[in-house]
Amino acid sequence: MNQLPSRTTLLVINAPEDQAELHASTADIDAAVARAKNLLPPLDARCLIFGHPDVAEAMATANILLGWRLPTDIIQNHGKNLRLVQSVNAGIDNLLPLDWLPPGAALCTASGIHGPKLQEWATMVLLMLHGRMPFFATAQRAHVWSRHATPLIAGKTVLIYGTGGLGSAVARAARALGLAVHGVSRSGAPAEDFATVVTPENATPHLQKADFVVLTLPLTQATRGIANAEFFGRMRQNAGFANFGRGALVDQPALCAALESGALSGAIIDVATPEPLPAESPLWATKNLVITPHVSCDDPATYITDALDLLMYNVARLASGQALRNLIDTQKLY
Amino acid sequence: MNQLPSRTTLLVINAPEDQAELHASTADIDAAVARAKNLLPPLDARCLIFGHPDVAEAMATANILLGWRLPTDIIQNHGKNLRLVQSVNAGIDNLLPLDWLPPGAALCTASGIHGPKLQEWATMVLLMLHGRMPFFATAQRAHVWSRHATPLIAGKTVLIYGTGGLGSAVARAARALGLAVHGVSRSGAPAEDFATVVTPENATPHLQKADFVVLTLPLTQATRGIANAEFFGRMRQNAGFANFGRGALVDQPALCAALESGALSGAIIDVATPEPLPAESPLWATKNLVITPHVSCDDPATYITDALDLLMYNVARLASGQALRNLIDTQKLY
Repeated sequence: MNQLPSRTTLLVINAPEDQAELHASTADIDAAVARAKNLLPPLDARCLIFGHPDVAEAMATANILLGWRLPTDIIQNHGKNLRLVQSVNAGIDNLLPLDWLPPGAALCTASGIHGPKLQEWATMVLLMLHGRMPFFATAQRAHVWSRHATPLIAGKTVLIYGTGGLGSAVARAARALGLAVHGVSRSGAPAEDFATVVTPENATPHLQKADFVVLTLPLTQATRGIANAEFFGRMRQNAGFANFGRGALVDQPALCAALESGALSGAIIDVATPEPLPAESPLWATKNLVITPHVSCDDPATYITDALDLLMYNVARLASGQALRNLIDTQKLY
Repeated sequence: MNQLPSRTTLLVINAPEDQAELHASTADIDAAVARAKNLLPPLDARCLIFGHPDVAEAMATANILLGWRLPTDIIQNHGKNLRLVQSVNAGIDNLLPLDWLPPGAALCTASGIHGPKLQEWATMVLLMLHGRMPFFATAQRAHVWSRHATPLIAGKTVLIYGTGGLGSAVARAARALGLAVHGVSRSGAPAEDFATVVTPENATPHLQKADFVVLTLPLTQATRGIANAEFFGRMRQNAGFANFGRGALVDQPALCAALESGALSGAIIDVATPEPLPAESPLWATKNLVITPHVSCDDPATYITDALDLLMYNVARLASGQALRNLIDTQKLY
């Protein structure tokens, strides 16, 4: 299946207008074609912003789709010629169920392109949790000068849920800071940058010992709400928590309770439910909680080029009948 | 001068009771004597908390004084036998004028022992300024989800005021992050870890270009208020600012104005005037300003041992008539 016509039509659906810094242009596409190391078919490219009235018409003739956001209803109704749908996200939870995906089309994620930025962001977040910055932020909101000195971070322990591209980026950050790094994955298979990896069923001893617990998981039926009251109750007193995965991995009221009671020393979350987080959410004012607006993985300087390079790699692989990078198994959903 | 008697009396003035984690004991002193690599005279040691009623009496017979806080009035009135006053601070601004120092006593700082902790803290602060954490903290206080993605920090430029122990620690942190590092010092003399060092009079071109400006200066007549409206006005649009030196280096209303106007993208200050900062200070609620309560340089795990090791080094040097480390020139005041 998945054959490409001799003349291939590429449609890029850019992010909405308020994220213009992430908009790919046909010039960006030409540059990516010029950079490509593998043989590409001739490409007719068009770039449209998500929500543009011409998207449905363009979809009807497109063979390749690259989407900062994917218009799944339009794909389902007009995407009969699609052979490859390339997302720029690491996960597919926002795309489930996959009943909109045309039978002849492969779906690929952009897992891996977010690593360097997250590695740097995780370095900051681990140092912030260790240095009690969530506590100081809460004290600042109350206009209180309250000292709490901390030793060096080296020798502390981190437990990372997820050992894929994002989890490995956090692991590299933690190792560079001198932390002991343990991981949790479905398979429990060993992974580079992790001293040990265990399955979720065997994670409790690590959870009880870790100074920091970090989520980088995709959102699936198995991971939704994984960080609940029981989870936080197993964490050691004064541990710190961070979430770089998806907001719905966390039972948010349970996180608030663990912070308000002082069981956790602090948390830093880059994702929330829903996003954008509404003004009336109790999360904003929760004690020792720092919120960042889903910025931990996006590097505006390289996002477009990295996404286009990945796309061209997969287009060349598709044209030559080779296995695609980050291809989603529509049964296993990862 | 500065001869030690054959049997030497050491008095340690510990920090006030609310900082018990920093209290040195006679057991700590015995351990430091055992660690010492140089020949020490026999030491009779006593530890008292700052403010204890016996301090004056103990001061009368002390030859060596180590102080987490120095009771300058008692030293002036009772310290006639003192030969060495060892402070645990990097600077002496809180001790000026030095008219309380007995004529036969040397005054030494603890410059250098704060380096490893500040290096780690500065790594966090540079990443926070770059990642717009002060902006996100302000947005959180307003319950607003407002995205601002940032590229990697490598290639940015930092200008560090002060090239001594603290400035060098910040420089090492910045170099490890891939920043270009420039310094400002009174002499303008080259310093390790700095690409260039200029005098304050020649700093403007660097100030106009730097993405981050960091103060690590001691407080003197020449440095008081050095970061004023003119200084902030010369910084580039959207630059970030940090202060690890002393609060009074900064004209605080000028800093607030530069932040409120949006000229600076953010600031993180670990020192303020006065300390503790009172609840009614406008700094607490200033836009894009993060305040930490003077914790950037103190590692509770190593502070006592590092201070005692430095003391024993200087006691041995004094006993053998050699030059002391971190000796203050009472004329130049540094």
